[in-house]
Amino acid sequence: MAEKPGGKQATIDLQSFIRDIPDFPKPGIVFKDITPLLKDPIAFRATIDQLADCFKDAKVDAVLGAEARGFIVGAPLAYKLGVGFLPVRKPGKLPYQRRQASYSLEYGKDSLEVHIDAITKGQRVLLVDDLLATGGTMEACCRLVEELGGIVVGCAFIVELAFLNGRLKLAKHVVNSLISYASE
Amino acid sequence: MAEKPGGKQATIDLQSFIRDIPDFPKPGIVFKDITPLLKDPIAFRATIDQLADCFKDAKVDAVLGAEARGFIVGAPLAYKLGVGFLPVRKPGKLPYQRRQASYSLEYGKDSLEVHIDAITKGQRVLLVDDLLATGGTMEACCRLVEELGGIVVGCAFIVELAFLNGRLKLAKHVVNSLISYASE
Repeated sequence: MAEKPGGKQATIDLQSFIRDIPDFPKPGIVFKDITPLLKDPIAFRATIDQLADCFKDAKVDAVLGAEARGFIVGAPLAYKLGVGFLPVRKPGKLPYQRRQASYSLEYGKDSLEVHIDAITKGQRVLLVDDLLATGGTMEACCRLVEELGGIVVGCAFIVELAFLNGRLKLAKHVVNSLISYASE
Repeated sequence: MAEKPGGKQATIDLQSFIRDIPDFPKPGIVFKDITPLLKDPIAFRATIDQLADCFKDAKVDAVLGAEARGFIVGAPLAYKLGVGFLPVRKPGKLPYQRRQASYSLEYGKDSLEVHIDAITKGQRVLLVDDLLATGGTMEACCRLVEELGGIVVGCAFIVELAFLNGRLKLAKHVVNSLISYASE
C-alpha cells in the first residue's frame, strides 16, 4: 500500500514501470531500466514510501547509498526517514579521509570509498541501492559500515534479480526488495 | 526558515555544515565538501525543504539532476515536490534512446545524456545540482531540456561559487542557491 501525494491509499504495480532493455550494456544481458518509475510522480513516491515502511521500526540513524544510482534511491529515503545521507563513491571522488573496500567483478576488481567520519560507532545504517544483482557492491558497502563501527540494519533495493542469488552474499543481513525477478 | 522533522520552525546555518578541503582535486583548488551537511538529519532536511520552498509556486512537473551529486539533491527534492525525477548521466550509462549535449571543461570537452522520453513537450522542469561553479554542466542540462521541448522553470543549487560567475551562463533562467561564496 503506497501513500499518494494527496494522502489517499492506493496499490500500485511498481513492476509495470520497469522497462526491459535487451542487450544492454552488452549482448545477452536484459537491463532493468528504472527511469520510467523515477519519472512517474506516483510510482516514485510509492517506491520511497514502501522502502521507508519496510524499515520504519528499525531505528535507522542514517541511509547509505553507492554512486550513482544508489544516490537516487538513498537520498530521498533518508529524507523520508528524517535521517542523514552517507554517499559511497568510486575511488578519488570523495575529498576527505577515506576508507576503501574492494569487490570482485566478472573480470577483475573494483573499489568503493566512504569518508571515515561518515559513520560513528554504534550508528544504525540502512544501505540502499536500486538493484540487487550478484550483491558484490552491497557486500562491500556492508563491510565499510562495519569496519567504521556502524551496524547494518538492512539492505534495501527497488529491484532484485533473484536468479543471481545476490542474497547469499548478504545472508547475515536483513534484505528487502520491492520487485523480484525469479528468472531473466 | 526550515521545517524540522518534528514540525517546529528553526533557522539553521547551512554554511556551517560545508567543509573546506584545500588542494582538492588539485593544488590551489578549495573544494566545498557537502558531506557534513548531507549526514546531518536537520541540515539535510532543511536544505531540501528550502530548495523546494524557492520553487513551490513554480508549477514544477519534474526535477532533473546530473550524475552523480545532482542525484543526491535532485531525487529528494522531486520527492518533496511530489513530482518525478529525471536523471542526466555520463555517456553510455543510460540504456534507452538518448539525447546528448556537450560542454567545455578547462581542457577539452565532456558530454551528458538524457533519455529522449524523459521530458514531454511543455513539461516544466526544475534543474538541480549541488554546486554552481562555471555553470557549464547546468547550461548543458538546460539545453537538453529545451531541445526535448521542456520548459526550464529554474536552476537550484545548494552552494554557489559566485566569484566564478556561473550565473552569467544561465542568465535567461531563474537561479537560486542556498549558500553563496563571494570569494575563494
